[in-house]
Amino acid sequence: MAFDIIRSARAVLHVKDLNASRVFYDALGFIETEVDEHSIYYRGLEEHVHHSLVLKQAPEPAVEVISYKMMSEEDVDRLASHFVAKGYDVKWMEEGSQTALGRSFRIQDISGIPVEFFATMKTVDRMLQRFEHYKGARVQRIDHFNCMVPDVQRAYNFYVEELGFRCSEYTSDDESIWAAWLHRKPSVHDVAFMNGDGPRLHHIGFWLNDQLSLIHACDVLASLGYVDSIERGPGRHGLSNAFFLYLRDPDGHRIELYNGDYLTSDPDFKPIKWDINDPTRQTFWGHEAPDRWFNEASLVNNVHTNDTVALKEPTLKRKKPTFVI
Amino acid sequence: MAFDIIRSARAVLHVKDLNASRVFYDALGFIETEVDEHSIYYRGLEEHVHHSLVLKQAPEPAVEVISYKMMSEEDVDRLASHFVAKGYDVKWMEEGSQTALGRSFRIQDISGIPVEFFATMKTVDRMLQRFEHYKGARVQRIDHFNCMVPDVQRAYNFYVEELGFRCSEYTSDDESIWAAWLHRKPSVHDVAFMNGDGPRLHHIGFWLNDQLSLIHACDVLASLGYVDSIERGPGRHGLSNAFFLYLRDPDGHRIELYNGDYLTSDPDFKPIKWDINDPTRQTFWGHEAPDRWFNEASLVNNVHTNDTVALKEPTLKRKKPTFVI
Amino acid sequence: MAFDIIRSARAVLHVKDLNASRVFYDALGFIETEVDEHSIYYRGLEEHVHHSLVLKQAPEPAVEVISYKMMSEEDVDRLASHFVAKGYDVKWMEEGSQTALGRSFRIQDISGIPVEFFATMKTVDRMLQRFEHYKGARVQRIDHFNCMVPDVQRAYNFYVEELGFRCSEYTSDDESIWAAWLHRKPSVHDVAFMNGDGPRLHHIGFWLNDQLSLIHACDVLASLGYVDSIERGPGRHGLSNAFFLYLRDPDGHRIELYNGDYLTSDPDFKPIKWDINDPTRQTFWGHEAPDRWFNEASLVNNVHTNDTVALKEPTLKRKKPTFVI
Amino acid sequence: MAFDIIRSARAVLHVKDLNASRVFYDALGFIETEVDEHSIYYRGLEEHVHHSLVLKQAPEPAVEVISYKMMSEEDVDRLASHFVAKGYDVKWMEEGSQTALGRSFRIQDISGIPVEFFATMKTVDRMLQRFEHYKGARVQRIDHFNCMVPDVQRAYNFYVEELGFRCSEYTSDDESIWAAWLHRKPSVHDVAFMNGDGPRLHHIGFWLNDQLSLIHACDVLASLGYVDSIERGPGRHGLSNAFFLYLRDPDGHRIELYNGDYLTSDPDFKPIKWDINDPTRQTFWGHEAPDRWFNEASLVNNVHTNDTVALKEPTLKRKKPTFVI
Repeated sequence: MAFDIIRSARAVLHVKDLNASRVFYDALGFIETEVDEHSIYYRGLEEHVHHSLVLKQAPEPAVEVISYKMMSEEDVDRLASHFVAKGYDVKWMEEGSQTALGRSFRIQDISGIPVEFFATMKTVDRMLQRFEHYKGARVQRIDHFNCMVPDVQRAYNFYVEELGFRCSEYTSDDESIWAAWLHRKPSVHDVAFMNGDGPRLHHIGFWLNDQLSLIHACDVLASLGYVDSIERGPGRHGLSNAFFLYLRDPDGHRIELYNGDYLTSDPDFKPIKWDINDPTRQTFWGHEAPDRWFNEASLVNNVHTNDTVALKEPTLKRKKPTFVI
Repeated sequence: MAFDIIRSARAVLHVKDLNASRVFYDALGFIETEVDEHSIYYRGLEEHVHHSLVLKQAPEPAVEVISYKMMSEEDVDRLASHFVAKGYDVKWMEEGSQTALGRSFRIQDISGIPVEFFATMKTVDRMLQRFEHYKGARVQRIDHFNCMVPDVQRAYNFYVEELGFRCSEYTSDDESIWAAWLHRKPSVHDVAFMNGDGPRLHHIGFWLNDQLSLIHACDVLASLGYVDSIERGPGRHGLSNAFFLYLRDPDGHRIELYNGDYLTSDPDFKPIKWDINDPTRQTFWGHEAPDRWFNEASLVNNVHTNDTVALKEPTLKRKKPTFVI
Repeated sequence: MAFDIIRSARAVLHVKDLNASRVFYDALGFIETEVDEHSIYYRGLEEHVHHSLVLKQAPEPAVEVISYKMMSEEDVDRLASHFVAKGYDVKWMEEGSQTALGRSFRIQDISGIPVEFFATMKTVDRMLQRFEHYKGARVQRIDHFNCMVPDVQRAYNFYVEELGFRCSEYTSDDESIWAAWLHRKPSVHDVAFMNGDGPRLHHIGFWLNDQLSLIHACDVLASLGYVDSIERGPGRHGLSNAFFLYLRDPDGHRIELYNGDYLTSDPDFKPIKWDINDPTRQTFWGHEAPDRWFNEASLVNNVHTNDTVALKEPTLKRKKPTFVI
Repeated sequence: MAFDIIRSARAVLHVKDLNASRVFYDALGFIETEVDEHSIYYRGLEEHVHHSLVLKQAPEPAVEVISYKMMSEEDVDRLASHFVAKGYDVKWMEEGSQTALGRSFRIQDISGIPVEFFATMKTVDRMLQRFEHYKGARVQRIDHFNCMVPDVQRAYNFYVEELGFRCSEYTSDDESIWAAWLHRKPSVHDVAFMNGDGPRLHHIGFWLNDQLSLIHACDVLASLGYVDSIERGPGRHGLSNAFFLYLRDPDGHRIELYNGDYLTSDPDFKPIKWDINDPTRQTFWGHEAPDRWFNEASLVNNVHTNDTVALKEPTLKRKKPTFVI
């Protein structure tokens, strides 16, 4: 590739009650980098950049954009040109138009997901060794996005062939790909695509340094009256080996707390194939996920109109809701 | 009281396939003290006594007896006399009739549970500092029995007033007790009684030193193909503050792996009352328990006839299965 | 015994700068029950009583008293009579003379340690399930006192024969006892005596629910500039199986954070003998303790005069400082 | 760069008693991939390649070579040409000459360290989800090499400018670099250089998924009589934020068990500078390292002659042994 996407970098979420969201994310142990009347900028304990999560006050919950960091401004330019050449409508966001962010561009990706690419974000002090600020889930860094899309194969092809992502694991029925875990940084994923009504953002994954932080997050959330925010877990996925917990924030945006992972730096690492009928792929162990885990996800916005993107039905279908990955 | 019951000490379970059971309990990290053709004697890592769990090969799964340890042989005698005076049919088991156990007596308790009292068990080396033998759940010691009985109030009265147990926590609807946690050692419980078809043994609780051993137990069980043995959890009960995992052994006997607890040594510790309608009592956080957790339990034997004890319906009833505690 | 001592219950320490002490103990995660101009009352997360640690502003650091809780006021009376009969000078402290405490009496014990016995302390809400307040070391409850005394055998005899303590573990050279771990509650100890210049309080042990809380305490203390307060550990003692960390508070009082322990309820539990020449008794693994861990300890006050009690040299002597236990 | 070094990949160590070494490394939880009369091939739980550690029976302990994995055979060729052009004496190792390894070449690097580059190693099954095999330290993967060299600045320049490594952290006195942490994979390091008598290999770092595995490793090692193998730790470095434990294997080779780390993927991550006089750089908390941690390290072999490489004194000197990093 003529451009180098480094990693999943941030999500911009619309929330209906910024104060309510703030209480929730503070409890999880996110670090507040900056707060103003309309938005909050959060980062994890090890992050040396201004934010990895932006919450914006808005009339309706939605995903404004998910953003990837690139190696340089030149990479951003080359990627933008690549998209233009492919017929994409690129929307440039000039430096200064977004807090702490350099110039960027946004597109609606092949599945309709609003995606942004940038190379520069203001840097700040890491809190990694400020252990007195560790609390809740001790969120360490953003890890990945998980998107529900109607045609996983199509998304897979685009991200792998056009953007240079590599596949670590995938679900298949020998004919079609039901779900795929794709990465740029050498972890299991920066983005996963699952079969379903889309485009929607299923969840944002944040990495924790240990399993006990995840257990403690459950305890703290329950103490604070957020027990209903715990949607699924703790449990372990076969796929990705994630020790996971899925939460729903006050607007229903889904957050995954995640420990596990492994190094995927080597080109001879063969993508792990999971059969769609293998129950351990999704739940190595743990309670059955509730239907809403499969059915509900955050709607996404059009980067040009700011309207909600209409959903399409998936190309692959089975009766039970559990067959999305 | 004229007698001193120290603690819950062991359970004797009948299993249909000793070898199958052995693979399961070995995986959990129980220490095999002794194995013969018909039975296996297990103990936890810190236990200095011969066993806390006996599995016996039998045609049908059942609970032969649950046993409490007393301070001295004289205490055993005085308690036996007490039972005789109360009209109980006491069955003496002479020394030598049970592996590693001194003399004991058995009765059918007020709820029909087969209960045994003894003062002497052969002592063995502790494995507490033999860390190379730690594996699976790193089971440390037996903690408690949980019994499903038709009349919790009646069981409560007997154990508190006649046997000297103290109550740490209980569930009530302001009129009746639905469940009660009773202890002799200064922990949350040696025995709990829950409202339901009984007499049955709902589970045996074993104490773990840390939460990660419980998570690792899930991983190991899933690795070994026992994922269906994980019935409920991980989660936390409001009641007892237990960080819990419920397993079903190959015969359906239920084992709780348990971390949490607190010291209940003080007479001014007021029993904690939980309202039957408070959802946090049962599940502080964690997935909803499956119906079988509420409906299924191990049948118990008559200590005199060795026949299965017939079940009675509970005195307190609600429609949903979740109302047993 | 005609009286029932339940457990080690609290320590009253004199500190030179209450504010400096407060920052330190708050960082460790102690819960402040009450603070006034001259003193702070702390408790652990699971404690349902007003306090287990009292800090009092004073010109010089000292141990005012260590206190044991008894089963009833009658037990307190009987024990006081017992001490009087033995020729001890009993000092009564009437109800109301100490914050949150009922009546008590104090004596100088056989080694010169200021010891108090009481049956009643004001009860408060437990914080055990208020997980949002967990921080630092997540101190759960007081566990034990460790006293350095000139004649361990003498202290041992008194506590075992006169007060009804039981021995869990001890260090011996086949002729003499160098150190002994004694308990009333069924844990490894409520009090330990070590050979050395005394009477002094070597440390107060607080129990943690897990090992990671101890590691996190190190991280937090180092973050806050208290790295020099970490005197020894983390490591594991052979004796007691403690996973330990020793801290020195701003006045030099030593606090042990402690996880491990085991149940000592059974009369057939044989005290574990460690040879004075067995290096694993003290350090199962971990760095060598600094000399100050062996040489330094808190001076104690006379309960009648409030003067510092003069030190005596130990009856057993070896050249190296490491031979105190 | 015209070549892509992926990561630190394996070390080949000479040991005097293969059986003794095997007992030690097995206890740590390394997975044996292959064992023959003269050598053992170990890997970590997540590693999909044949080995990351090779032990070879030899008359004297030594480091035969440390090896880096490259992206492709073409990268290997281009790097070899680069070394030849720089005047290095390249020694090719043809495919088949080393178990499980494709072709490679070895050089003596600018500091005299024997280094190897390869692109192909036989792949094997990962054990990541075979949790029943987890034991000891649950070693997950190789992480880094730490080399003691006489001229850190020179090594730094070569690895950064010639080989494309990036610096995450370094120690400086404002004039000179005393130590530097360099990476290719986006972690803190693949290799570190510390000032001292060299060339020597100070240690090989293996990554653990959690802190408790490190504590358990101490317990297991002590149980098995290896307490003297624990040289330093547990503790936390300021540098790299490592929660560390240093072990000496039966031949004195030093192994670091390591948890912590952070993502270093971003080009705007500024290398963290630590002042040589800042005591927290080396020990954020933890006991002082023994002198042997500073003075002792494994001798390395000449890749051409197989003789031991003679040591040179460091260019930077201070009196105390603790000034090597």
